[in-house]
Amino acid sequence: MSSALEGVRILDLTRVLAGPYATMILADLGADVVKIEMPEIGDDSRHFGPHIKGESAYFMSINRNKRSMALNLKKEEGKKLFLKMIKKFDVVVENFRPGTMEKLGLGYDMLKTINPKLVYAATSGYGHTGPYSKRPAYDAVVQAMGGLMSITGELGGKPTRVGSSIGDITAGLFTTIAILTALTNRSTTGKGQKVDIAMLDCKVAILENAIARFTVSNEIPKPIGNKHSAIVPFETFETKDGEIMIAVGNDVIWSRFCEAINITELVDDDRFRTNVLRNENHGILIPLILKKIKNKTTEEWQNVLDNFGVPNGPINTIDKVIKDPQIIDREMIVEVEHPIAGIVKVPGIPIKFSETPGEINRCAPLLGEHTREVLKEVLGYDENRIKSLFEYGIF
Amino acid sequence: MSSALEGVRILDLTRVLAGPYATMILADLGADVVKIEMPEIGDDSRHFGPHIKGESAYFMSINRNKRSMALNLKKEEGKKLFLKMIKKFDVVVENFRPGTMEKLGLGYDMLKTINPKLVYAATSGYGHTGPYSKRPAYDAVVQAMGGLMSITGELGGKPTRVGSSIGDITAGLFTTIAILTALTNRSTTGKGQKVDIAMLDCKVAILENAIARFTVSNEIPKPIGNKHSAIVPFETFETKDGEIMIAVGNDVIWSRFCEAINITELVDDDRFRTNVLRNENHGILIPLILKKIKNKTTEEWQNVLDNFGVPNGPINTIDKVIKDPQIIDREMIVEVEHPIAGIVKVPGIPIKFSETPGEINRCAPLLGEHTREVLKEVLGYDENRIKSLFEYGIF
Repeated sequence: MSSALEGVRILDLTRVLAGPYATMILADLGADVVKIEMPEIGDDSRHFGPHIKGESAYFMSINRNKRSMALNLKKEEGKKLFLKMIKKFDVVVENFRPGTMEKLGLGYDMLKTINPKLVYAATSGYGHTGPYSKRPAYDAVVQAMGGLMSITGELGGKPTRVGSSIGDITAGLFTTIAILTALTNRSTTGKGQKVDIAMLDCKVAILENAIARFTVSNEIPKPIGNKHSAIVPFETFETKDGEIMIAVGNDVIWSRFCEAINITELVDDDRFRTNVLRNENHGILIPLILKKIKNKTTEEWQNVLDNFGVPNGPINTIDKVIKDPQIIDREMIVEVEHPIAGIVKVPGIPIKFSETPGEINRCAPLLGEHTREVLKEVLGYDENRIKSLFEYGIF
Repeated sequence: MSSALEGVRILDLTRVLAGPYATMILADLGADVVKIEMPEIGDDSRHFGPHIKGESAYFMSINRNKRSMALNLKKEEGKKLFLKMIKKFDVVVENFRPGTMEKLGLGYDMLKTINPKLVYAATSGYGHTGPYSKRPAYDAVVQAMGGLMSITGELGGKPTRVGSSIGDITAGLFTTIAILTALTNRSTTGKGQKVDIAMLDCKVAILENAIARFTVSNEIPKPIGNKHSAIVPFETFETKDGEIMIAVGNDVIWSRFCEAINITELVDDDRFRTNVLRNENHGILIPLILKKIKNKTTEEWQNVLDNFGVPNGPINTIDKVIKDPQIIDREMIVEVEHPIAGIVKVPGIPIKFSETPGEINRCAPLLGEHTREVLKEVLGYDENRIKSLFEYGIF
């Protein structure tokens, strides 16, 4: 079986997270991703701890399946070479501060004259337009500004940052969607285009109903802990040995739930019969449930609730996640062998195709590991020509 | 300008969030999305509050740009019609519990015999394979099981659910990527395929470096509040009137930050000179910064820090998000006029194309609003034929 994106060539100038996450997905699905890195320094995230034998776990976890070419875009000969390569690639992705590529003399308006079929994706904190465009941003800042923190946190507690860099990651996902859409469009029009993705915009896009909810009710959404804003019971409960998330999504599940935890007298109780009533009487209902739930362990409740078809799950820490039978069965934990670091576990590919499955067949590259290989393959250079280029100090 | 996905036809059987979020993005980018809904009942989320004049804010916020066709897939005549329509569409998306389409006699193995070019996307809680496959799941449950809750929360506090349904939303984003990838692949192979997306898998995929970090360090990641796991200072600070997120991402920003808040004596202090040292001496450094920050308001600090190029931002609540100048400038808050509910604000489109911009030109549909229109347009039926179909009670 061939891979889904076989033949798609991506020149990847991205660093750290949002951009590299996008190109990782494309590489997982079969695109040929050539990561351009500054000689000797490389992607900033190569320097993020923890390290194993000098190799960054952070870098390794989001750069598998890519090749690395060292190339100094600040030097004249480096730029020249880059412009030659541009002709051979379908996509360029960068996540510099807006204006950086123009300052290098490598802005989209210039690149498209060389390759009009080029898809150019730019991912930045605030986007290439608007009053904040040139400001620096990090994940934590856009999580704060974009509203997500204001609705995350313990009930009555402080706004809380999401524990993974969801600001970067969702920008990476939207960038991937943008690139694939532009490629789809190009297959009919024959023309490339530029796409501009802002982390802050993506944060607004993932608020889903919070904005409509606010404009309709005029109530400012606040952190509500692990409860649902409108469904009851739909929250975490303390068990004998920990916590369990229980999600009684509708009135049918409610009656199964009452049976499961042996509170059948409450099924048709006038205070709890429907979700609307349970919402109104949340304060009365929850202590009644709590009293039952704390009598068994999380695992015991899992078994009982599963038997009754009540959606539930433990709050898994990372050590438990990587051992979960479903997660293992779905190949969502993959071991990659790195020549220096040894075996490292990374998340698998969540897109399961019937005909063209993704594959992880390459660990994260060493800095500049594929410079020679790419020059030979993409530009057809021989060893002598490559040698002479090395003299410019651009690799 | 035409839209990016013009000509792509999507038959959308999805309900509530993960699936509808995916088809919303595709519709925003120009695909023709026909939402199939159960007559009289419709998408479950039509019944989620708050409502305005009987119309759900939740439903309206993620179903713009789609058309609605009422069709009962449990009735024989409904199935027959569906199979006729399948030939005319590029994509089918569903987010039923695994096995539901097979029970209806409309599983992928059958549909592909009718239309081998069909891309079939299935989004579910745990996926179509593995021991948990048939279990029901909700966003809150997969947030708990997938590890994200275990690393989100106040420092030393309890695992915390992300305030938006990030379990559904990331599954929606990966589903969108999968559909576009399958379409790209089909343009070369001529063949469709099935793709199986699990919310739980997607949760593992967005843990980014947490898994690699754990396997390298053997330390179980825990909630760390609004701090960064490895960069200092990179957290929220109390101001005179609220809080501000400050992200001193590297040593260059550190020296600008010290100037900005007037602690220049600390720039080269042996305890704080480098990020590694600042990490070690976090407990000493933070109180020194706090003392300064609480003397000015959030807005005053924003101005100062912006001037010094230090990444920072307020923690915006939703009312502030929809008034933010950058967010408005980027058209990330869009007003949609609904014939019954009136004007409703929804998030804009975070993918900004230079040549084929997305557009929001249709509010969320009424249940079955486009049944006749779709029958005429897609199947070429005339009014008489449609009338006779109505007698089967399938619309």
